[in-house]
Amino acid sequence: MKVVIVGGVAGGASAAARIRRLDENAEIVIFERSGFISYANCGLPYYIGGVIEDKEELTLQTPESFGLRFNTDVRVRHEVTKIDKENKTVTVHDLEHDRYFEESYDKLLLSPGAKPTLPPLSGLELPMLFKLRTVEDTFAIHEYIKMHRPKSVVLAGGGFIGVELAENLCELGLKVTIVQRPKHLMNTLDPEMASFLHARMKKAGISLMLGHTVEGFRSSKEGTGLEMLLKDEEPLYADMGVLCIGVTPDTELAKEAGLSLGLKGSILVNEYMETSEPDIYAVGDAVEVRHRVSGERAVISLAGPANKQGRIAADNICGGRSTYKGSLGSSVIKVFDMTAASTGLNETALKKTELSYDKVYLTPQSHAGYYPGARPMVMKLIFERESYRILGAQIVGYEGVDKRIDVIATAICSGLSALSLKDLDLAYAPPYSSAKDPVNMAGFMIDNIKNGVLKQFFWDEVASLPQDDSIIRLDVRTPAEYGRGHIEGFINIPVDELRDRIAELPKGKPVYVICHSGIRSYIACRILSQYGFDCHNFSGGFGLYSSLSGDEMLAKELLPCGAVKG
Amino acid sequence: MKVVIVGGVAGGASAAARIRRLDENAEIVIFERSGFISYANCGLPYYIGGVIEDKEELTLQTPESFGLRFNTDVRVRHEVTKIDKENKTVTVHDLEHDRYFEESYDKLLLSPGAKPTLPPLSGLELPMLFKLRTVEDTFAIHEYIKMHRPKSVVLAGGGFIGVELAENLCELGLKVTIVQRPKHLMNTLDPEMASFLHARMKKAGISLMLGHTVEGFRSSKEGTGLEMLLKDEEPLYADMGVLCIGVTPDTELAKEAGLSLGLKGSILVNEYMETSEPDIYAVGDAVEVRHRVSGERAVISLAGPANKQGRIAADNICGGRSTYKGSLGSSVIKVFDMTAASTGLNETALKKTELSYDKVYLTPQSHAGYYPGARPMVMKLIFERESYRILGAQIVGYEGVDKRIDVIATAICSGLSALSLKDLDLAYAPPYSSAKDPVNMAGFMIDNIKNGVLKQFFWDEVASLPQDDSIIRLDVRTPAEYGRGHIEGFINIPVDELRDRIAELPKGKPVYVICHSGIRSYIACRILSQYGFDCHNFSGGFGLYSSLSGDEMLAKELLPCGAVKG
Repeated sequence: MKVVIVGGVAGGASAAARIRRLDENAEIVIFERSGFISYANCGLPYYIGGVIEDKEELTLQTPESFGLRFNTDVRVRHEVTKIDKENKTVTVHDLEHDRYFEESYDKLLLSPGAKPTLPPLSGLELPMLFKLRTVEDTFAIHEYIKMHRPKSVVLAGGGFIGVELAENLCELGLKVTIVQRPKHLMNTLDPEMASFLHARMKKAGISLMLGHTVEGFRSSKEGTGLEMLLKDEEPLYADMGVLCIGVTPDTELAKEAGLSLGLKGSILVNEYMETSEPDIYAVGDAVEVRHRVSGERAVISLAGPANKQGRIAADNICGGRSTYKGSLGSSVIKVFDMTAASTGLNETALKKTELSYDKVYLTPQSHAGYYPGARPMVMKLIFERESYRILGAQIVGYEGVDKRIDVIATAICSGLSALSLKDLDLAYAPPYSSAKDPVNMAGFMIDNIKNGVLKQFFWDEVASLPQDDSIIRLDVRTPAEYGRGHIEGFINIPVDELRDRIAELPKGKPVYVICHSGIRSYIACRILSQYGFDCHNFSGGFGLYSSLSGDEMLAKELLPCGAVKG
Repeated sequence: MKVVIVGGVAGGASAAARIRRLDENAEIVIFERSGFISYANCGLPYYIGGVIEDKEELTLQTPESFGLRFNTDVRVRHEVTKIDKENKTVTVHDLEHDRYFEESYDKLLLSPGAKPTLPPLSGLELPMLFKLRTVEDTFAIHEYIKMHRPKSVVLAGGGFIGVELAENLCELGLKVTIVQRPKHLMNTLDPEMASFLHARMKKAGISLMLGHTVEGFRSSKEGTGLEMLLKDEEPLYADMGVLCIGVTPDTELAKEAGLSLGLKGSILVNEYMETSEPDIYAVGDAVEVRHRVSGERAVISLAGPANKQGRIAADNICGGRSTYKGSLGSSVIKVFDMTAASTGLNETALKKTELSYDKVYLTPQSHAGYYPGARPMVMKLIFERESYRILGAQIVGYEGVDKRIDVIATAICSGLSALSLKDLDLAYAPPYSSAKDPVNMAGFMIDNIKNGVLKQFFWDEVASLPQDDSIIRLDVRTPAEYGRGHIEGFINIPVDELRDRIAELPKGKPVYVICHSGIRSYIACRILSQYGFDCHNFSGGFGLYSSLSGDEMLAKELLPCGAVKG
């Protein structure tokens, strides 16, 4: 059997290694357009920032070492330009020697990945304007910075690559500006969750120009830098720029060969990673997947799914029957000392579906508050009404964020009910967690909602509460906390004085209660509801509320600190 | 409704707070023998070591603050000495004023916890010999060290408290010796996993006297210290000692009241946390639980279950019908810069059951190897043959250990098959994980076992391999690695030379292959098996093997570092 693999990074390299382990006699040829295979795609921004210092660390395997270990014919700087599916051959462009040749295959695996989205903007050819996809792109940016010592950089787009690059360039001492049309960074997060990242990035000196539309680029008058052209605004000067607008499945080859395409031009595959053509498989960022929560078609560019799919395609190329179970889109990003992670669907996505959902916010400590170093995290967990199926979660904080998102991702993959999160028996010791882990706490809250013990209201509902005295707005924090900032119209009665001062509250009116994190206000709601009040607890507390400022979703404060214990 | 709660720490305090939230009108009385309630039980060793500096951090709530917030009558230094279940009263000993009185109840909740196991040894009354259960015990040890500046301490027992205390006393500069009969520390771990902790503790200068039997204590001749008396050995001198032998359910009260008892004298409860007597509930370290994996009865002294049970008992006291789902025994411990965690059943426990199990060892990196700070961990995952049910896991390493154990604990709680671990969509970015997370990797290995792609042999089988030339023993590491140490009788052919040198291996003989971590030997097995060899891969690699030295299970080396990528 002769297997030709197009693309030698995550999915392609995984597949080649697995095919060899399953079949010592297969002939395996990898064609990779760039000069490197099996490289650390997700590490590229960190090489630019100097966090990863050694070039060789980026390129986990050389074509030679990989070829030797897996007895594979690895040809870098070779681009497959055409598939002849009838004759089972591909046309290959040897970029080094600029010659073309044909290569036959029995099985063909496409792992072309995704390419940076390049909108039709002017000036994309400017020498100080970059994109970041390959090792070569990385070296080019690195080299440019070393040679020209730019003082400022503008990034078009604030997704994974944009945010990671912003941090790394900021650490190098550049003045960084991120410009994008969406009102918040990271579309994996909902706006109120992203607001904590906005605050952190601004604290680091990064300028965020959100809600601005890039129209093109041109050389600056002096010619040393560039001007980013903005809609209805003055151009923005920077010494260099990087396009981080997003990625698009790189499927020209598949399309020309007449393979069925899916969402966003991705390659359509079934659960066996088979394309519409016999003996042609596809994996990675270029393929359409099923979302494990929505069941809908999706294109998800992440390394985890690509690697898993590579292994599955290899199994099936070698006669097995392995299946891909779909993607959750679990992801995590480091933003300076913070971590933001998500899994499943966010609320922005859910609003476009028919699903009826509810949600809880909580701000637990990363580990026991009495053990040094505990820091709060903000967790948002979304579940389906009635069924209590977990739909998604987002967490922003410092340590322990990745752990909780992985626990929730595992719960989703396992079909665990949101109501069962309270029963998870997780490992506890003071340096690692609390006796009631944050995930258990989310489960307790959802259990309380089911049992009618907890009714909530949310950050985006505050403005639409009746502005007259038909309701009671109550802040149960201490007078000192209240004095440092509160929502207009909320009166202050500390939770521990509530029983004695209950007469101050006019009977028969619904009460909307807030505290810092949501715990004291919950206790207050429980007290009041038993005195006959219809109570609503502000989910997430003033800590969450204060990180948002009106419609612009601009963060004013960092994650809430302190007072969480109460 | 009047609820009397015996014991105001984890389970009791949780229950009181929950009862109040559910029923503003309940009368709640807590009797706590010690002077503190709702204290940080798991933080006590860290106060002694000075990691937690402030006394107030240990005592999360004062009796007053708790009483105020939850409108609860909290009486510390009050010991309940008798239950009159017919008349529904308890007899209470006011320890402060040494007077007795009776208190009536409608519902009684027992949360007495567990007490340090005190075997019938001589000298337990010695003033420089301590135990560690309460805040008072903690202050006594702290005070003794401050006053007497002991230079050496001997700990009888190396479980959670013993190991945590050893670290903390070591950090204070004391010469620490742990003495115990079992051959390895931490009975939550199997011996080969504990061996990594042994090495780490010895590196810190802690003496481990494992397999030694303590027979008693006596004053040293000078009277300033103590001598630990050992079976068949010279006495061991130390300036002070602490008994950390283990804990026993503190159920004298329940027993005298005629409540049905279970394993180890624990209180028998059903899934509603109801005892054998109407209107009497029990929670926490004192009760018998169902083990979620074995289905057997168990006594598990951990804070997580206690807190959950407190909430469940409260629900049911208030007329609900909440159930406890059983315990997994998930636990984690910090040992200097290392972390050891476990969930479910270990092999030592499984050997006593009828269950037929298999296992995998792996030594993945905590996060992507090319991102700074990645460190290896050793993971052991045990699953049931045929059904592929996950039975348990143990992990020892540095960062990310707690995350993976919680993911596996969640998988067990959710009933996920070990075969599905490979499909978990976990969050990946270079600072947090690898594109194939360690848990995915374990899943891949188990999938390979199921499909016949991987056959293994284990550390404790090496000695019983035929010593003649009826088998081939093969080490596929580099000559340099081989030169630094290898198992007697294993010949060296590096994996990357194997295809060329295959003629050196006599056909028809089974091959036992080892490398450093198990990855290269797996690749070698795959090559060889396709040349007709019956191949067995050493699970865990030379890194695991070299941490064990014969029967004594004494660790020679730390966790394997480097060469894991290959």
